[in-house]
Amino acid sequence: MTTATFLTPIQENILRVEERMRAQAELDNHPDLRGALEQLLASGGKRVRPMVVLLAGGMLGAEPDKLVTLGAAVEMLHTATLVHDDLIDSALLRRGMATLNSKWSPAATVLTGDFLFARAARLAADIDNVRLMKKFAETLATIVNGELTQLFAAHGVINRENYYNRIYAKTASLFEMSALSAGMLGTNDLALQDTLRIYGYEIGMAFQMVDDILDFCGDQNLVGKPLGSDLLQGLVTLPAIFYAEQHPTDPDVKTLHLGNWQDEASMLRLVDSIRHSDAVELAMHEAISHVERALDALMPFPPSVEHDALIDLARYIVDRSI
Amino acid sequence: MTTATFLTPIQENILRVEERMRAQAELDNHPDLRGALEQLLASGGKRVRPMVVLLAGGMLGAEPDKLVTLGAAVEMLHTATLVHDDLIDSALLRRGMATLNSKWSPAATVLTGDFLFARAARLAADIDNVRLMKKFAETLATIVNGELTQLFAAHGVINRENYYNRIYAKTASLFEMSALSAGMLGTNDLALQDTLRIYGYEIGMAFQMVDDILDFCGDQNLVGKPLGSDLLQGLVTLPAIFYAEQHPTDPDVKTLHLGNWQDEASMLRLVDSIRHSDAVELAMHEAISHVERALDALMPFPPSVEHDALIDLARYIVDRSI
Repeated sequence: MTTATFLTPIQENILRVEERMRAQAELDNHPDLRGALEQLLASGGKRVRPMVVLLAGGMLGAEPDKLVTLGAAVEMLHTATLVHDDLIDSALLRRGMATLNSKWSPAATVLTGDFLFARAARLAADIDNVRLMKKFAETLATIVNGELTQLFAAHGVINRENYYNRIYAKTASLFEMSALSAGMLGTNDLALQDTLRIYGYEIGMAFQMVDDILDFCGDQNLVGKPLGSDLLQGLVTLPAIFYAEQHPTDPDVKTLHLGNWQDEASMLRLVDSIRHSDAVELAMHEAISHVERALDALMPFPPSVEHDALIDLARYIVDRSI
Repeated sequence: MTTATFLTPIQENILRVEERMRAQAELDNHPDLRGALEQLLASGGKRVRPMVVLLAGGMLGAEPDKLVTLGAAVEMLHTATLVHDDLIDSALLRRGMATLNSKWSPAATVLTGDFLFARAARLAADIDNVRLMKKFAETLATIVNGELTQLFAAHGVINRENYYNRIYAKTASLFEMSALSAGMLGTNDLALQDTLRIYGYEIGMAFQMVDDILDFCGDQNLVGKPLGSDLLQGLVTLPAIFYAEQHPTDPDVKTLHLGNWQDEASMLRLVDSIRHSDAVELAMHEAISHVERALDALMPFPPSVEHDALIDLARYIVDRSI
């Protein structure tokens, strides 16, 4: 499955989202900032979050211009968190391209992220919907609080609840906000808005689970980072949790919480063990169950091209190779 | 003059601003974050910006609860920018107390600043005024763009226009936003709102000029940093600009833009020359002229205790010793 199937109904508006974002870089800013913003926006991923906004809002007949603004706001917020993330992780590459932080000083990187936050907030305010603005600010707080928790939390800990909280904060919260906000712009029916919120939540959870699975078995060239990089940072994700539950006596598992995640040889062995177990399949099964719940959440809505595209998008989340 | 004279009409509401800010720290956050936020808020300055909000809004009879929320939003935004500033400058002390960044990792400091941005944005959204929210986001962009410009700009440059732009972005923009937003909550008369905006702008410009003067002749124990620290960073502020205009052939002045600001002996000599010239007095005269324009901006408003307090507050800006 290619992205084309669900892109069809929104092809033009996705380009308008890009333009809206680029317009933020062209304002009266410092030339170095402008250059950095243009590079960040040009190198940017698949725009899955704006797609959710455009499709969910389009399905409900929301005003296209507001959806474009919302899509740009959501993607700019996402980009801002990535810029600060890369700084925090000292990451040199993202999506196979040099990160801002590999070329700029930490000071410039912090401020560029801040600037993206400011522009995202301004775009969100431009939608003229106070409830949406509150949800937007709340989501930023959730994301940042999740990152802080990850930073301070004991590493190498095998805990499902921690894991679900972490991926909600990191990924699902913004998908949830995207779908819910599109719902706010398309209908006054609170129950339908909440159903869309669930769609966003479920595909967000699935999206991060698949990302975590790809850390064990993705194509390294596509993923853009070495296999097992989560474990080597002490982050125990879903495939490792399934494996640990099935192999509690594996020495590499037992010593994880004692700091063994810092032992590269042990972790590479553990990655190999996980790849050769059925843990990856079980994790994928769990991701698929989230997608199924997302599809259930679409049932109240009448058929339309956008409705079909939202189904395709949810399925794509677990079918993608990156 | 003590702060008491202009605090009288808002004593209770300033405490409510403190409570509103502290409530943000008590939400469902990570304990380490909670501790850091409480420390940041407890160590926080004089709350001049919330005072402007409470007095300007109070003068117009705006709803006190909204003013308290606005005051908390403005002060949290200010605190967020200080946290990132300290990280960028690698500052160890602020107001004589250890900065967050002297005790925490850069990662935790970046994220704490981000969290404060998120909470400030949520408080601003809670006011339920879309135009105010837009101004809020716009002001954050102005502040950050100013910091980036300062970071990238050639140092040691003697240029009035640069200086005015820099202090507007750094300080006056948030004072302006505080007074204008309070005006939005108190009156629908756009001309009166703009008059209040001017009041905020003028005291903000004066405030930063006095700060820059104190860098040359303040009490080091109160200012909390060594004298001449701006020059030693290559930042040429108003007293140095006046001195340079009067002494263009002073060798320490002539070599400033060539990187001489990195020469500590030369800069300490220049600080001494500036202190013994009338440059400080001329700079103070310029700060006072901004305060006078701020007082002119208050003229359209009828007499009230808040009106008197705004006059006192503007005068205090140039009378304070820190």
